[in-house]
Amino acid sequence: MKEKYEQLLSIFREIQVIEQISMLLGWDNQVVMPPKGVEQRGNQMAFISKLQHEKAINPKIGELLKEIKESPEYKNLSYEEKRNIYLMQREYDRVTKIPPEFIAEFTKQQVLTHEIWKKARQENNYEEYKPYLKKILDMGKQFANYLNPDLHPYDVMLDYFEPGMNREKYNKIFTPLKEALVSLIKKCLESPKQPRVEILNRKCPIEIQKKLSLDVIPLINYDLERGRLDEAAHPFTTGNYDDVRITTRYLENYFPSSFFATMHESGHACYDQNLKKEWRYQPIGNYCSMGIHEANSRFYENIIGRSIDFWKFYFNRFKEITGTLFEDVELDDFVHAINNVQPSAIRVEADELTYNLHIILRYELERDLMEGKVTVDELPEVWNQKMKELLDYEVKNDAEGVLQDIHWSSGMVGYFPTYSMGNIYGAQFLHKLSNDIPNWREEVEKGNIKIMTDWMKKNVQEKGNLYDPAELVKAVTSEEPNPQYLIDYLTEKYSKLFNL
Amino acid sequence: MKEKYEQLLSIFREIQVIEQISMLLGWDNQVVMPPKGVEQRGNQMAFISKLQHEKAINPKIGELLKEIKESPEYKNLSYEEKRNIYLMQREYDRVTKIPPEFIAEFTKQQVLTHEIWKKARQENNYEEYKPYLKKILDMGKQFANYLNPDLHPYDVMLDYFEPGMNREKYNKIFTPLKEALVSLIKKCLESPKQPRVEILNRKCPIEIQKKLSLDVIPLINYDLERGRLDEAAHPFTTGNYDDVRITTRYLENYFPSSFFATMHESGHACYDQNLKKEWRYQPIGNYCSMGIHEANSRFYENIIGRSIDFWKFYFNRFKEITGTLFEDVELDDFVHAINNVQPSAIRVEADELTYNLHIILRYELERDLMEGKVTVDELPEVWNQKMKELLDYEVKNDAEGVLQDIHWSSGMVGYFPTYSMGNIYGAQFLHKLSNDIPNWREEVEKGNIKIMTDWMKKNVQEKGNLYDPAELVKAVTSEEPNPQYLIDYLTEKYSKLFNL
Repeated sequence: MKEKYEQLLSIFREIQVIEQISMLLGWDNQVVMPPKGVEQRGNQMAFISKLQHEKAINPKIGELLKEIKESPEYKNLSYEEKRNIYLMQREYDRVTKIPPEFIAEFTKQQVLTHEIWKKARQENNYEEYKPYLKKILDMGKQFANYLNPDLHPYDVMLDYFEPGMNREKYNKIFTPLKEALVSLIKKCLESPKQPRVEILNRKCPIEIQKKLSLDVIPLINYDLERGRLDEAAHPFTTGNYDDVRITTRYLENYFPSSFFATMHESGHACYDQNLKKEWRYQPIGNYCSMGIHEANSRFYENIIGRSIDFWKFYFNRFKEITGTLFEDVELDDFVHAINNVQPSAIRVEADELTYNLHIILRYELERDLMEGKVTVDELPEVWNQKMKELLDYEVKNDAEGVLQDIHWSSGMVGYFPTYSMGNIYGAQFLHKLSNDIPNWREEVEKGNIKIMTDWMKKNVQEKGNLYDPAELVKAVTSEEPNPQYLIDYLTEKYSKLFNL
Repeated sequence: MKEKYEQLLSIFREIQVIEQISMLLGWDNQVVMPPKGVEQRGNQMAFISKLQHEKAINPKIGELLKEIKESPEYKNLSYEEKRNIYLMQREYDRVTKIPPEFIAEFTKQQVLTHEIWKKARQENNYEEYKPYLKKILDMGKQFANYLNPDLHPYDVMLDYFEPGMNREKYNKIFTPLKEALVSLIKKCLESPKQPRVEILNRKCPIEIQKKLSLDVIPLINYDLERGRLDEAAHPFTTGNYDDVRITTRYLENYFPSSFFATMHESGHACYDQNLKKEWRYQPIGNYCSMGIHEANSRFYENIIGRSIDFWKFYFNRFKEITGTLFEDVELDDFVHAINNVQPSAIRVEADELTYNLHIILRYELERDLMEGKVTVDELPEVWNQKMKELLDYEVKNDAEGVLQDIHWSSGMVGYFPTYSMGNIYGAQFLHKLSNDIPNWREEVEKGNIKIMTDWMKKNVQEKGNLYDPAELVKAVTSEEPNPQYLIDYLTEKYSKLFNL
């Protein structure tokens, strides 16, 4: 049986290598490819996708898994080995349960709907998009049905993107979070103490912003000998192990864009770099879930990067690098400005506090759509109502409303909530970290950021995909995911900032 | 039968796509990869090589080729279709005639010998390298024997790298060339008119050298919307069709290094970009041979780039870009300096005139080694004798002598002569171009470099691999490859430069 297990590992190792090649093709495409290389790259990517799929549906995988699980020696496998078997089976089921003809049709429709969505957003024309959205969401439901016909399709998709999750759990988590946030945001907005936001819009030359990014990266232990920083329209992280690359975006009149994108992506990158060396190319050596990935990026970006503690240390260095640009700015004013609270239309530009309400709005809408309580016809109206209700924001048009995100145009629902789970996990990790290292604030103030990133490495990153996300959180914090830690963290932080 | 032919095209199309991916992995490795990504990239490249090999030895290829050639409809195929069939068969034979066990053993020994060679060169220690060189050359002979046991192994390898070539043809070409060059070089060195070489060593900031490269690239019609320029230790070109990338090397105290490497690689790149669109991914749509590739690079670098005609136009622009750096330099002095003749040890640093003697030396040594007239023991001594004889250069040590090139460490002989064939083809093309466009010099002086590159595109580049190299030369110039054109071109050019 050991031999069969090794055979499986080697099949999955090869699939991982192909995935690495695929990620490199994607990176090159977005960062350095000559503009007219698009079509050629399309051929290459199509070839690699096809190859990946062929390897993943190899019936040999199914046979080996069956034989191993039926073997009397199965029970002697270690937890790690059993987890590998479990993850292989999960992946194999996912790729083999969907009929190839459906995949072809779905992919074709996704490409088409994506193009229609781009145009509709540009022209602020939801009506044109509507029939395509309806069709692709129906196909998304079909996709979920193929995966598991016995569960509600939205529960299938929630579990697909964040293993173990479903509506019941999300409802329980998001309801108290929503209430707490709405009230906290209101208080912040009503506070007489408001930040000097002009600080953020001071013209900061891109060369200086690059210097800042390259200065902060080693501080937070993202290893550039195993990575690189480039520029792209949409910041992203790609690769794993010894080759993990990030991109950021420089705006001359808004330096936080590049600085915090760098910290955010560095968080993702550290996770991918710090996966356990011994488990590389094994399913357990992969990252745990999108939510846990996001927990890492937001831990580095927000919990460290926007904390007063970090800036107590970093502000002097920051001022040195930026010359005279911020010489008149006090530490407290600066930290308040980078933590400004301002309800606005666009999710990806939202602050730490309002962000989660953007997500909860999408979660509730997806859920209601999938439950048939909201129709695609009513979607823009309900969107705008909820924006008013949750964020007291009047949406001006569908382009800044229901059309803003790419996600639904692929027919895939259930992804959005993982973003907020990242924040929830992150705050819960911070709570545990504070118990483990009660003096972390003083250490960070002295520039010892490593004490935080080492904790994350040891407790979260190195565990890879050894557990499903909620199990991982429990293994680390001895408790199921609990939104109260995020509520407490945000309440404490913002009460100080806004003198509540 | 048409259907079988289409099936073959689609198999070879896929092999081409994999080759593109392989080239991208290689480019990334040399240009942008994080230093510690080496091992991971090794896995990816090994996977792609294995995949390429699997696809190339697919027995289906052999069956289809046989069926097509035995079909009564075969004779109705067009020349292009028959040429595709021929090239597919050639490629299939090449990859299937070598036993897989031998390939594995050979590759392993190549990697080892390469490492030993690097160390030996560094330490100027031929003795340590010698037994490995002997072994790998024996394996190289074995490789040739597998390909064709009926021919002399060196003839097999000459044909392998430049289809249609053998010792008889090379001897006939290189003998008059050698005599003419030895005499011409002697005259140049004895001439009282010698160039002001200090011009070449003026400190030229790398930023300015980059500007020069980016200025000259569009002039010679290498399309950067389908390519890019980067920096690497050893300049190279990679990719094809709509994604062809070049690198150059900047030396602050020797600007010709980057400028002419850019022109050289742009020549390679134009060839790869200008392959006929309709034939992409077909064997006939590939480049013809290494020699014809080199004919392109040297045509752009030397025939255009080091000509007085080009500089009559370009020198003012060059001076504008370089500011005051060359303001005291006259056109004639500049052109003389960039065409300096100076026998020296290292092939890759040799000038246009001495370069071919470096090649002929290697050709004669390879030939004599393979014929058993020279042994690996005698190699350094014979090398040094020949350097004295051909270039009147006293080799100081083996590091600058027999150890300088990487080629033999792979056990592959027969590649070197293709470099000189590039010069021979190029001069012959120039002769034909001069008949077709008698006023090309005046056009180039006016800045119309396109008239030259368009001619190359139409007459050479677009023909791809429609003919073997000698046939291509004949199709273009109505004559077999003839070294006299190179002799005449060099004699005329250098007589003017050195007042002979």
